[in-house]
Amino acid sequence: MAPSPSPIATFVPVAPDSHFSIHNLPYGVFSSRSDATPRPGVAIGEQVLDLSAIAAAGLFTGPLLRDSDCFHQTSLNRFMAMGRAAWKEARGTVQKLLSADEPALRDNTDLRKKAFFPLNEVKMELPAVIGDYTDFFSSKHHALNCGKIFRGVDALPDNWLHVPIAYHGRSSSIVTSGHPITRPCGQVAPAAGSSSPAFKPSSLLDFELEMAMFVGPGNELGTQIPVESAYDHIFGLVLMNDWSARDIQRWEAIPLGPFLGKSFATTISPWIVTLEALEPFICNPPAQDPPPLPYLKEPQGKSYDIALEVTIKPDGDPKGSTICRSNFKHLYWTLGQQLAHHTVNGCNLRPGDLLASGTISGPEQGSLGCLLEQSWGGREQVALENGGSRKFLEDGDEVVISGQCKGDGYLVGFGTCSGKLEPPRCSC
Amino acid sequence: MAPSPSPIATFVPVAPDSHFSIHNLPYGVFSSRSDATPRPGVAIGEQVLDLSAIAAAGLFTGPLLRDSDCFHQTSLNRFMAMGRAAWKEARGTVQKLLSADEPALRDNTDLRKKAFFPLNEVKMELPAVIGDYTDFFSSKHHALNCGKIFRGVDALPDNWLHVPIAYHGRSSSIVTSGHPITRPCGQVAPAAGSSSPAFKPSSLLDFELEMAMFVGPGNELGTQIPVESAYDHIFGLVLMNDWSARDIQRWEAIPLGPFLGKSFATTISPWIVTLEALEPFICNPPAQDPPPLPYLKEPQGKSYDIALEVTIKPDGDPKGSTICRSNFKHLYWTLGQQLAHHTVNGCNLRPGDLLASGTISGPEQGSLGCLLEQSWGGREQVALENGGSRKFLEDGDEVVISGQCKGDGYLVGFGTCSGKLEPPRCSC
Ligand SMILES: [Ca+2]
Ligand SMILES: [Ca+2]
Ligand SMILES: [Mg+2]
Ligand SMILES: [Mg+2]
Ligand code: NI
Repeated sequence: MAPSPSPIATFVPVAPDSHFSIHNLPYGVFSSRSDATPRPGVAIGEQVLDLSAIAAAGLFTGPLLRDSDCFHQTSLNRFMAMGRAAWKEARGTVQKLLSADEPALRDNTDLRKKAFFPLNEVKMELPAVIGDYTDFFSSKHHALNCGKIFRGVDALPDNWLHVPIAYHGRSSSIVTSGHPITRPCGQVAPAAGSSSPAFKPSSLLDFELEMAMFVGPGNELGTQIPVESAYDHIFGLVLMNDWSARDIQRWEAIPLGPFLGKSFATTISPWIVTLEALEPFICNPPAQDPPPLPYLKEPQGKSYDIALEVTIKPDGDPKGSTICRSNFKHLYWTLGQQLAHHTVNGCNLRPGDLLASGTISGPEQGSLGCLLEQSWGGREQVALENGGSRKFLEDGDEVVISGQCKGDGYLVGFGTCSGKLEPPRCSC
Repeated sequence: MAPSPSPIATFVPVAPDSHFSIHNLPYGVFSSRSDATPRPGVAIGEQVLDLSAIAAAGLFTGPLLRDSDCFHQTSLNRFMAMGRAAWKEARGTVQKLLSADEPALRDNTDLRKKAFFPLNEVKMELPAVIGDYTDFFSSKHHALNCGKIFRGVDALPDNWLHVPIAYHGRSSSIVTSGHPITRPCGQVAPAAGSSSPAFKPSSLLDFELEMAMFVGPGNELGTQIPVESAYDHIFGLVLMNDWSARDIQRWEAIPLGPFLGKSFATTISPWIVTLEALEPFICNPPAQDPPPLPYLKEPQGKSYDIALEVTIKPDGDPKGSTICRSNFKHLYWTLGQQLAHHTVNGCNLRPGDLLASGTISGPEQGSLGCLLEQSWGGREQVALENGGSRKFLEDGDEVVISGQCKGDGYLVGFGTCSGKLEPPRCSC
């Protein structure tokens, strides 16, 4: 583990269990009641710091940001495109402005009034215009379990230990935490004895515990990003729930992969935690055997120790039941390998593109990252703490994913990624 | 077939074999040497009519376009979002302005100088910002052949006659006709006797003859577009070459579908032919047996009689060999069914989204829409007219797709969709 950063005191109140300590400073895009224009902000304690206000006040004085309009945008794409030097400059400036012994913001009552908004009063928007969204399949436990459940095969696909498998998902239906999720309708396989598929609301609705990276600077079509420089192209991470309708998915997915079983919605947490903030939590990824091909071989593979939880809150049970405790470090393929693989054919990435990890399942029952695995394809009930149980989600269930890194006396957290399931709207 | 439109004379010279007759009026986005700003235009004969110049001159006088800035944009997305009434108004205005007996443009020498550009001197841009790109699999002949070649199965997938199968493709790597294509590198399956995959330039590079629709007005997330109103959401069609690296595709595609075998490039023709222009060429689609589920049942299914050709031009052979003659009308699933299926789970479409047909293979050898099928998985040589032959594409080959509808004394054509294959840039 990298050394902990030295403690920094901030004049903003931050509770010890806040996800948004001075060591975190995640980026998001928000609007407020006083100003409906979406603009970039940073979360600190229970507050949002409005970066457009800080920029307007001329407080970004570093060489890269001084003359930039990147914080006067309705998305973070322009800032993402600027690269790590600009990100470090911004982080340094914001950390200094928020520190207890720096008067520029602390003692400027007018600016503080304009620049701080209570976190629970703002509306969070998508942090970026997402040009393309890719979903990987990087947990070995998940891949093995899916093979057993979906295809009755007790082995990884032949390619799995060589190829960081992925497919393209739907960009348009990515929403931020809190957006309600409508149970989708669709075709499912013919019932036993029937030759005709049924059209109905999905009865096997699932979550998938994932995380996803936002791309910073991209690459030109026809060029590759080598694995050695992959991290220069990663802005930061969010939590993701890749909602999945298992019955629709199962019937449609051969031969071209998941489509409508996934495309009805994907939820992300609104605050992007940067790789800078995650540095103290770097850890070793699992050993890779067989060794990957040279284009995937990292000088020093790295993962991140991010504790993840999934809580199901049935209607009327605000406490809910935490049914999954997993960790980002279980993933077999690293962020750098995913990104290098994605571009090895010359495919161009663009700032704001989203690359998700795939379901993050660990080795134990309680760390399996979706109900498909926890209920073993619907064969077993998953007990809830309030006495009920689930094989798949019921209307009214809220699924809340949270994630955090525990530092020495502080947290670097992701907040939550939640969505509540609403009944189907179709008339079948 | 619908009745032919009455002949309209235009003051712009249009050769009888021009794809861009007064009955066509396809939309594109272009820039010129005098003005690098991309802007919407319409092709007529050998000219581009600059719609931003026409709008600036106040000649869009209809109620929907009079006060719109839709032609002062760098893409057609805003115009696409306005819907069919606006599209009809624009078409009526442009057709009138170009007609021989209308003086407004004909006799305004200054405006004509500002508004017309020679087609062979402009640079064509992507016509829209493509939020999501979907690739269907709607030719029964192609689906059957792929099953035989890829999986040794002499039957359609179980779901194929019920589900308009599709997957999400890569938006970022869509380019317009003429953009060079770099042969991709990637992983391919282990050679016989080896346990390790190889990393190398694809040696099975292929084209796929497709057409694609641009979405007009979209739908809100969680809602469906019924098949009865699907055509109100379709702006028009382009030609597409879905370049495919068969060796990469084959090794990666199980279990989640095609990814890097496709995402290195997709070429579209730059001129969008509207459904209005295609109306005289409506024809019956193939009979569907078994009947589709109710949500896919069309009051009156319709296809379009669009003759398609693929010509391979090896380096130094500008005439080339036309190796495929197919037709859009061979497709089993209609445009309306594709679009209704895409939204039946509540997935939202956005103006400018692109939905491709899948490879358009007909029943005969000479109408198979890709080399995979024509060479039967690389087992047979496909003869070229100059004496050579191909199983798959070679560096320097240019692939030219063209498409046209033959009217009574006029054409409604798509121009061409071409790309020349360049050697790999990777250092493997
Ligand atoms: Ca997933
Ligand atoms: Ca295709
Ligand atoms: Mg999803
Ligand atoms: Mg393609
Ligand atoms: Ni329904």
